[in-house]
Amino acid sequence: MSDGYESFLTRAREVHHLAAAAGLLAWDQETYLPPRGVGARAKHKAALAAVIHDKMCAAELGDLIDEIAAGELTPEARANLRELKRERDRAVKIPRTLVTELAEASSLAQQAWVEARRNDDWPRFTPHLARLIELKRQEAHAVGFTGEPYNALLDEYEPGGRIEDLLPLFAELEKVLVQLIGKITASSRQPDAGLLRQRFPVPDQDAFGRELLQDIGFDFDAGRLDVSAHPFTEGLSCRDVRITTRYEENNLGTGLFASLHEGGHALYEQGLPPELEGTPVAVAVSVGIHESQSRLWENCVGRSREFCRYYLPRLQEIFPVQLGSATAEQLYQAVNVVTPSLIR
Amino acid sequence: MSDGYESFLTRAREVHHLAAAAGLLAWDQETYLPPRGVGARAKHKAALAAVIHDKMCAAELGDLIDEIAAGELTPEARANLRELKRERDRAVKIPRTLVTELAEASSLAQQAWVEARRNDDWPRFTPHLARLIELKRQEAHAVGFTGEPYNALLDEYEPGGRIEDLLPLFAELEKVLVQLIGKITASSRQPDAGLLRQRFPVPDQDAFGRELLQDIGFDFDAGRLDVSAHPFTEGLSCRDVRITTRYEENNLGTGLFASLHEGGHALYEQGLPPELEGTPVAVAVSVGIHESQSRLWENCVGRSREFCRYYLPRLQEIFPVQLGSATAEQLYQAVNVVTPSLIR
Repeated sequence: MSDGYESFLTRAREVHHLAAAAGLLAWDQETYLPPRGVGARAKHKAALAAVIHDKMCAAELGDLIDEIAAGELTPEARANLRELKRERDRAVKIPRTLVTELAEASSLAQQAWVEARRNDDWPRFTPHLARLIELKRQEAHAVGFTGEPYNALLDEYEPGGRIEDLLPLFAELEKVLVQLIGKITASSRQPDAGLLRQRFPVPDQDAFGRELLQDIGFDFDAGRLDVSAHPFTEGLSCRDVRITTRYEENNLGTGLFASLHEGGHALYEQGLPPELEGTPVAVAVSVGIHESQSRLWENCVGRSREFCRYYLPRLQEIFPVQLGSATAEQLYQAVNVVTPSLIR
Repeated sequence: MSDGYESFLTRAREVHHLAAAAGLLAWDQETYLPPRGVGARAKHKAALAAVIHDKMCAAELGDLIDEIAAGELTPEARANLRELKRERDRAVKIPRTLVTELAEASSLAQQAWVEARRNDDWPRFTPHLARLIELKRQEAHAVGFTGEPYNALLDEYEPGGRIEDLLPLFAELEKVLVQLIGKITASSRQPDAGLLRQRFPVPDQDAFGRELLQDIGFDFDAGRLDVSAHPFTEGLSCRDVRITTRYEENNLGTGLFASLHEGGHALYEQGLPPELEGTPVAVAVSVGIHESQSRLWENCVGRSREFCRYYLPRLQEIFPVQLGSATAEQLYQAVNVVTPSLIR
């Protein structure tokens, strides 16, 4: 390995480590940050975002990339170079001030959203949303795009993804799904969701969720499960993958499927190769692939007949009054009830 | 205010914000980090420590300090300049590699210490301790000192403090304290510590501790109470002050006085002026002053007759079986039992 490539990897790892620190600031904000701490937290995030941006944009890193690209490279090294170059090419187009404004604004907006949600007070969130849209527009224009501005933003989640490719996909799905929902709503055979809508004490839900996560292979020595307003996964390293869930006492499904969904994300993150940790290839390849892992567990596994049959006896042990007389088929039908909602 | 001073403050705040991010990495390691995450955490800490060191050592900051020092300054500005200059003069003497080695080694050592403590397996910690001592020696020699090398390290906790001044103080205390312990041990009137050595369920201890902290003025909207192997306070901002405690089911005193002690530290941190946050004057002036605040609450207040008289009725409500028949005087004596131990 050339000296140049080693220097490149050192810089790549440094950015990765600092990004992990930024990830902890974000995770903590949604789990344990005391409410009055958000103003300072936004400043901390902005300062760290600026440092990461500076490191990424450093001319020396650009020179290293050019130098190494001209030489012989293993496939792994070439992939590392390609991935970091893509991220860097994007970063250098975004002004440092916009990076810090976005970090600070999104931190403040996150808390405003949580409060708006809790109090059903959306006007409280409106100015934050407007500010974020304005800043993300600025980002799109700074990065540059062909077609829709959103292409510049989509690219960050799905490298090379374009709205022109997604719209026909969504159009096709819409046709099928609207028809399907129509048929379901009109059907005289409505499944009974009431089974899940009883009182399920949260500590028991939590205990079952942890068992379930352990069963699917989530390593609690290399991760955590906490509670947040909206469930998410934050991988600080492949041995420190943190998921969150949310519980509703009157709906067993909410916490169960949130945990299973995030557990799917977490298995992907915990499965990244530790020996490559900190290098650009050792991160998730796209949000789409990530989501495929969460949906696999949530829907293909968690909403299957087999899952219901397997877990019903254990659920009956934990919730004998609520589920004692239920059948696996009833559980299967209850977890597959489809109703239109504002999210998903 | 001059442009130079504004640039100086911007840099000072940036360092402060990044240090707060480092503080969160440290807090999280002692509270919620999954055990297998420590290797990566050590790397994250090292990367951030290097960035903070670079920012502090930047030649531009040195130039700004020199430039501003030559001009007219308000007392506040002069104090800001003095404080950051002292920190910077120290930082520039310490090699960057030593900064990262120390950050990484102390992170790994912390976890090794927790495991050694849990399993009473001190040989497990020995190599970490040896490494830390070696690195701290290197730091002392890099910083420079007169007299004992420890003076270079003490200076970080007590600006201008010298071991030559402390040793006579400790010698005097030792004389009095050893005599006092001798008298106590020899006395035929031994107070009964048994009152605190009953079974006190941890959730009840925790509930009482939170009441107590609220009573002394700890703002839970601007702070947290969590559990760690050794209690500590981490002030990420004056509106985000995190304390930890530890509970022993068979000793009411452990958690109660740890919480009160850290609560004292926290009141100091929550009392720092928010309008000056991020500037060098708005931090604790020394570890000695900090400790005076924790000891004030723990010992002068918490071990007073008045405290025992005031809180006994509430403690009896929470622990009727254990404390129902106790008198305030018995409680007072129990919390003031003195026995030699390995810490304190």
